[in-house]
Amino acid sequence: MIIDRLCEEVKKYGPVCVGLDTKIEYLPEYLKDKDISDSEKLFEFNRKIIDDTLDTCACYKVQIAHYESLGLEGLKAYSETLKYIKENNKLSIGDIKRGDILSTATMYAKAHFEGEFEADFITVNPYMGEDAISPYYEYIKSKEKGLFVLMKTSNPSSSDFQDLEVKDEKLYMEVAKKIESWGEEFVGQSGYSSIGGVVGLTGAGELINIKNELKNSFFLIPGYGAQGGDPKVLKQLFKDGICAVINSSRKIITAHKNVDETETFSLCARKETLRMREDIGWEK
Amino acid sequence: MIIDRLCEEVKKYGPVCVGLDTKIEYLPEYLKDKDISDSEKLFEFNRKIIDDTLDTCACYKVQIAHYESLGLEGLKAYSETLKYIKENNKLSIGDIKRGDILSTATMYAKAHFEGEFEADFITVNPYMGEDAISPYYEYIKSKEKGLFVLMKTSNPSSSDFQDLEVKDEKLYMEVAKKIESWGEEFVGQSGYSSIGGVVGLTGAGELINIKNELKNSFFLIPGYGAQGGDPKVLKQLFKDGICAVINSSRKIITAHKNVDETETFSLCARKETLRMREDIGWEK
Repeated sequence: MIIDRLCEEVKKYGPVCVGLDTKIEYLPEYLKDKDISDSEKLFEFNRKIIDDTLDTCACYKVQIAHYESLGLEGLKAYSETLKYIKENNKLSIGDIKRGDILSTATMYAKAHFEGEFEADFITVNPYMGEDAISPYYEYIKSKEKGLFVLMKTSNPSSSDFQDLEVKDEKLYMEVAKKIESWGEEFVGQSGYSSIGGVVGLTGAGELINIKNELKNSFFLIPGYGAQGGDPKVLKQLFKDGICAVINSSRKIITAHKNVDETETFSLCARKETLRMREDIGWEK
Repeated sequence: MIIDRLCEEVKKYGPVCVGLDTKIEYLPEYLKDKDISDSEKLFEFNRKIIDDTLDTCACYKVQIAHYESLGLEGLKAYSETLKYIKENNKLSIGDIKRGDILSTATMYAKAHFEGEFEADFITVNPYMGEDAISPYYEYIKSKEKGLFVLMKTSNPSSSDFQDLEVKDEKLYMEVAKKIESWGEEFVGQSGYSSIGGVVGLTGAGELINIKNELKNSFFLIPGYGAQGGDPKVLKQLFKDGICAVINSSRKIITAHKNVDETETFSLCARKETLRMREDIGWEK
């Protein structure tokens, strides 16, 4: 099970997930001015950050919207970045949040667990129910792939629907329990399932609630860093062992802004990753 | 408002939405064997179907997963198809069902309302709440764009969460009402909003319930054809005027299978579109 490998990586390198939500405007001036295509610029930026953070993080999350917004050129950089992560024997999360009916989800599975956009894990949206998720099961079984399904998201409006009362609890808890039940058959030797959940750090109470309610779910936690989540919650969450990767994107990949606009931008990213790892209380 | 233009198209050509969920296996043999790239094959197939259905449908829905599954080559055909629809002065729906936090949704808006993947409407997922939708508002206002947000989907597992009881009604109704409230400021001269809803035909009762509860919402209705929805429901829905486009994909674009594997496949698609238009009771 891929989740066992992710747990190993967390043990070795700590629970930081480096988020490569790369925009052209984040690039240092020398790279912006270089006489290469935008696709090559984005990839060079990501490649250098990967090179300098390999031994400081558990995995990389690549947010596809940032690449989609640049069309085919952007998606070429998305593809190259995922390949480079794999070549370096690190794990990738394709942050795509897709969700669609069975026949369409089958196409998304093919798109993101095979071929040019292949990632180890992808994020998916649960609103359409299990048959929007089940087409990924055969990839979890036979191709060592994994999912992170949205449980409680880190944005302010997540309360619009996720906090509605359903059967004496919040909708997000009902969703989280159902997702854990889907993942039961994919629990690995680590005790965690290859179907995990996305739970935002910004709703600290919800994260602890969900953790207390579920047994086998590993979490992808956004909301640290630029989104302002409180790291103290993580120390509480990790008191019996680390069951999550914590993503930071902007704060890591723009760490060089106002400091350094040269080729050492990736060392700034490394420094911030190490700082974050300490901040969330990880010790080898 | 773009929704007014869609209403005009429905009046002129009927409410059929031709779904271009194109797969290589759907192509007639002569096209499969042609010495051109997969991207060119997919585009040639779509182009011919568009040419022969222009005066029989309100719009085209292009399901991006089918193109994503073929990587950059596939997405090139997605882009070409959207451009061709625009060149022919027809309306397109990019069926992408994206949904993410504000900063990321801003990137999806840029990706799908500008540049290579530009569509007139896109489909989006409401699970994350309004700030995952609001980045599209400025495009609705200033660039004549529109949204179809998932209200009640057409797949069997849509009941997993969408049918949960919330405040004495089903979650999907709560979601539908909230979506209508987001759309209030985008109501056009037609009386409909440029923020519409996706409601499956397969849950016939739900479609009528939602229609009775909402005032200004125009619907994109999947579930006709291959998914088996009952067209009688549509006659009831349209008793006071047509407030929807009804999508059919496989049944239209594979109409030539077992009949005709030649260049006239697009005429089979035309025939099925006309048959469907009659079946759902449209009269000019």
